[in-house]
Amino acid sequence: MKISTDYNSGNYSIEVARGMLKDSITAYTGGYSQVHYLIDEKVFELHKGRMLAFIDHPILMGSGETSKSFEAFHYLLETLLAKGVKRNDLIVVIGGGAAGDAGGFAASCVLRGLDYIHVPTTLLAHDSSIGGKTAINSKHGKNLIGAFYRPAGVIYDLEFLNTLPDSEILSGFGEVIKHAMLKNQETVDHLVALTRNGIDLRRIEPFVISGIETKMQYVNRDENESDIRKYLNLGHTLGHAVEYKYKIPHGIAVVIGIYAALHISNQVEQYEIFDLSYYYCFFDNLGYPMDILKDIDAEEMLSLISKDKKNQNTQTAGYVILKEFGEAKFIEIEKETLGKYINDIKESI
Amino acid sequence: MKISTDYNSGNYSIEVARGMLKDSITAYTGGYSQVHYLIDEKVFELHKGRMLAFIDHPILMGSGETSKSFEAFHYLLETLLAKGVKRNDLIVVIGGGAAGDAGGFAASCVLRGLDYIHVPTTLLAHDSSIGGKTAINSKHGKNLIGAFYRPAGVIYDLEFLNTLPDSEILSGFGEVIKHAMLKNQETVDHLVALTRNGIDLRRIEPFVISGIETKMQYVNRDENESDIRKYLNLGHTLGHAVEYKYKIPHGIAVVIGIYAALHISNQVEQYEIFDLSYYYCFFDNLGYPMDILKDIDAEEMLSLISKDKKNQNTQTAGYVILKEFGEAKFIEIEKETLGKYINDIKESI
Repeated sequence: MKISTDYNSGNYSIEVARGMLKDSITAYTGGYSQVHYLIDEKVFELHKGRMLAFIDHPILMGSGETSKSFEAFHYLLETLLAKGVKRNDLIVVIGGGAAGDAGGFAASCVLRGLDYIHVPTTLLAHDSSIGGKTAINSKHGKNLIGAFYRPAGVIYDLEFLNTLPDSEILSGFGEVIKHAMLKNQETVDHLVALTRNGIDLRRIEPFVISGIETKMQYVNRDENESDIRKYLNLGHTLGHAVEYKYKIPHGIAVVIGIYAALHISNQVEQYEIFDLSYYYCFFDNLGYPMDILKDIDAEEMLSLISKDKKNQNTQTAGYVILKEFGEAKFIEIEKETLGKYINDIKESI
Repeated sequence: MKISTDYNSGNYSIEVARGMLKDSITAYTGGYSQVHYLIDEKVFELHKGRMLAFIDHPILMGSGETSKSFEAFHYLLETLLAKGVKRNDLIVVIGGGAAGDAGGFAASCVLRGLDYIHVPTTLLAHDSSIGGKTAINSKHGKNLIGAFYRPAGVIYDLEFLNTLPDSEILSGFGEVIKHAMLKNQETVDHLVALTRNGIDLRRIEPFVISGIETKMQYVNRDENESDIRKYLNLGHTLGHAVEYKYKIPHGIAVVIGIYAALHISNQVEQYEIFDLSYYYCFFDNLGYPMDILKDIDAEEMLSLISKDKKNQNTQTAGYVILKEFGEAKFIEIEKETLGKYINDIKESI
């Protein structure tokens, strides 16, 4: 399965399959002088005996968000340069979203930009590996330093998902369900029916692929997020605040944010578009920590939302709501009103 | 005088005049929420009483190359973020080539890229402010980390040049003469005649503008330096090595490199295209330290040339020579041969 972008130039494709990693990488490397592998250290540890056995002398990156510090980024660049990286070299980044973000950003600025391939190893990265956003973290917030920089290709070997811990599957599934909600009611119904009793990775594969297609459509039409790409932030406004406050995985926080967005959609549109208790139970059964919504403090959430680079306007916060599944809408909500909505959600639980 | 790029999209112009700085900046700032000024500390000290009196709370950058360390770059980004920089803000970078490089790179990656304007304050920066190359230094070499990132505009107020020390004028003039040599014989003759007894900034203004136009033509046609933009490296291959070894200003080292390139052009083409002693005397009279050529060690120069990101191929080095003024040619020279040429130059002085 191969899905390609549709830009005027500089297109790339994401290849989704099982067990094709080495062959797929080889298909790219022919035209380059050297290949440098940047690999999440945990991923390398887990797979160096088999899937990654063909790789010698990788540059290991700290696992997860630790790879996104400024210091780790500096180390990555100087290590590449110490190895004598050249303009006609290829960088291959193997790991989840954080590795892709930091490795992609390093590729974008070493020698003013080399080609790179991302090999996502998590379910969550089906989302983050598309769209060309790269970034590291500042002490003032996540993803504040980075570049829009497209990969030369994405190779998504689903064999990597076999070793994911449950929390990572829940996290990645958050973006799968988000993409379904941005597609249509039918896709949501089908996905809920399929996963009501638990997430079977093999069975949700078609929805992962459909999610990739949905995301691809948005980023094709609005790469720099000036318009409809914003819809992909469904669940992310409150989600990011919850992620920061409760230190839970990204996609798990996004699910909490999605539930809040459904709630707020009903409020804004002033009728019950979505059956809130139905989705609450669905998420709760799957193991998402929905009771966090009972604990949140509206003031604190608003303060965190205001720090987000997307919501620094003083009076309002941008919010993605749904008029129905498949029909998103970007609105500005007065922060005072948003605080009231958050309290309503809290009390409704 | 306004000269514009001619890309398919994302064009910008360089405005060259005297005393228009504040008005020109104001013409840009209307559409932005806030403006952040990044200013070379020496430039601010010299001009805060008059030309820059309208600027409050600038972010000061270390002067010259000190602003291009990784630490200075990190400080710049965190300072912008601490000030609450937003997506719709404008960054204005005021300073020479180094400030433009580091400030432009910071603009390229804060919040994944904000608009920026460069206000060059040196003669040398008539060159570096065009073409969208930004960068900082690695411990492994100069300009190894950066981005191709176009400014939203360049405002070149020649009043800044009044406070330049002689060494900076000599340095900037190196790129002026390079651009003349890339244009045609007539321009070179005219410029040499005009400056034989010293460089008068007001009188060479037409040549600065012509140099900007020449550079603009090259970067318009080959922004990412895969082809003819390489010609702009005339004098830079040996120049960079000399700059590194003797710690002299960039454009002064480039003049030494240009003289070497004329010498090598004669050798490669096997007839006396250029009257070497004529140009040697011209440069020597103006105050360029041409006797460095007597001191250089060919082996050491080759080793430095091999570290350049443009010349990491093991057997040969890329070199720009001239078949005549206005007709550059990019050739690969065996490093052994190049060493011989360098020794020939050394012995001929």
